[in-house]
Amino acid sequence: MTEASPAPLAKIEFDARPYIVNPGKRFSLHDRATRDDGGLDKQLGKDAFELLRDRLVDLQENLYAEQKRALLVVLQAMDAGGKDSTLKAVFGPVDPAGCRVKGFKKPNDEELAHDYLWRVHHWLPKRGYIGVFNRSHYEDAVTVAVKSLAPKKVWSRRVGHINDFERMLADEGTTTVKFFLHISKGYQKERLQRRLDRPDKHWKFNVADLDERARWEQYQERYSEVLGQTSHKHAPWYVVPAERRWYRNLLITKVLVDTLEAMDPRPPKADFDPSAIVIE
Amino acid sequence: MTEASPAPLAKIEFDARPYIVNPGKRFSLHDRATRDDGGLDKQLGKDAFELLRDRLVDLQENLYAEQKRALLVVLQAMDAGGKDSTLKAVFGPVDPAGCRVKGFKKPNDEELAHDYLWRVHHWLPKRGYIGVFNRSHYEDAVTVAVKSLAPKKVWSRRVGHINDFERMLADEGTTTVKFFLHISKGYQKERLQRRLDRPDKHWKFNVADLDERARWEQYQERYSEVLGQTSHKHAPWYVVPAERRWYRNLLITKVLVDTLEAMDPRPPKADFDPSAIVIE
Repeated sequence: MTEASPAPLAKIEFDARPYIVNPGKRFSLHDRATRDDGGLDKQLGKDAFELLRDRLVDLQENLYAEQKRALLVVLQAMDAGGKDSTLKAVFGPVDPAGCRVKGFKKPNDEELAHDYLWRVHHWLPKRGYIGVFNRSHYEDAVTVAVKSLAPKKVWSRRVGHINDFERMLADEGTTTVKFFLHISKGYQKERLQRRLDRPDKHWKFNVADLDERARWEQYQERYSEVLGQTSHKHAPWYVVPAERRWYRNLLITKVLVDTLEAMDPRPPKADFDPSAIVIE
Repeated sequence: MTEASPAPLAKIEFDARPYIVNPGKRFSLHDRATRDDGGLDKQLGKDAFELLRDRLVDLQENLYAEQKRALLVVLQAMDAGGKDSTLKAVFGPVDPAGCRVKGFKKPNDEELAHDYLWRVHHWLPKRGYIGVFNRSHYEDAVTVAVKSLAPKKVWSRRVGHINDFERMLADEGTTTVKFFLHISKGYQKERLQRRLDRPDKHWKFNVADLDERARWEQYQERYSEVLGQTSHKHAPWYVVPAERRWYRNLLITKVLVDTLEAMDPRPPKADFDPSAIVIE
């Protein structure tokens, strides 16, 4: 143990595994906390987050140097769940040359003329890269179902397609890790109200969000089904209690570090003898 | 029976089904003819081809007008199997605004940095279109195996990925039909020799084709495996005896017409009453 940085983490013995969705088990979001601190002191948690974030930056550099595998990060949440602030806090310090965030909105005409995985496939990270999806193909199995945008026959098959797709990605070198930012309906109300109260946040408020809010329970149910059916060892879902930002950031960063450490990316060995090269 | 055009076809009672690869059965290309005329007179066959080709043009127009589903046509063959001349004969008369041919060559650096289905997915036809692949993702399971461009662990999984992928496409509105242009090793020799003998065909000759030719049996074996494992009702393989061009063209066009007739594309009903509109 000659590395200095992991020590404070080891001391707090922080474990992300309780937040995973177990593959193959019936799953309900109702059983998961929206507010949690893992028994940690806030300041200690923030310190740990910073150390982990530095480690993430180093691991990303190794992934980039190795250029053999990719990491796909999927972020889903209800409105005001904190996706944007998570991206900023967790991926802000990562070298943007090797990490791309892609937000998916309502598909355009060209995208609708193809299968729903067409645009998603296009934006996948290539070898050496981290790709982060702010919303994703999961909306084609969740939102489409809740809002009846397609018949049940169509959306119910998509869970299978998505499992096949992520299996193929894993086989071909892309690891996937998925986060559902979990908040309560009451917390969403607070956050939406804040957007109304602060003129500098008005741009984030969308009247259509209230229609989605009215379908809260349907979304929770459909997300529960889909998360339960699409969490696998090679592409797990984590349900992140998202009402405490510092804990949310810590947990997500811990999962990313654990995932990348398991991938263990290594820069390629030099194909020259550096001691034999003289730079004049 | 008031339609005049199908009559001569009915008379010759031409059936493409014997050329299909039966799903789930062990399959070997050795059991299939490379030279065949289906017991047809050549002139009658050519006449039938022209009628079918006209029918194909009409069906494509309906597919385009309907704008709901797509047809993917995959063409594979050994070198000098006749892919280019097939494309010209069969798809030449189809409206190019609704039919796109995409040839896949050796993947470039950007393509190699993604999974092998990435570039294929990108070029899929959108709703209303026919997309024709001159070579395809099947080379990632065949050529890569024969030439050991990746470990067996990697290429052997790809048959499963491809089945999943084509299943998803079928669920989402794209029908796939696949043709293997089947020739003998002796016929290939003749065709390659012809490229050497005729200066105007030299551009089609590639010395590397001789390396591929040296692996003839390995290719036949691997194609046999892959065709047998990836032929399904929603995405069947047809093994086309390709040494007689007129018969090859007739057979492929017949399959395309049968496939599109089963899809039965219909232009949308007008959302206006044409008799109520006066153009002054």
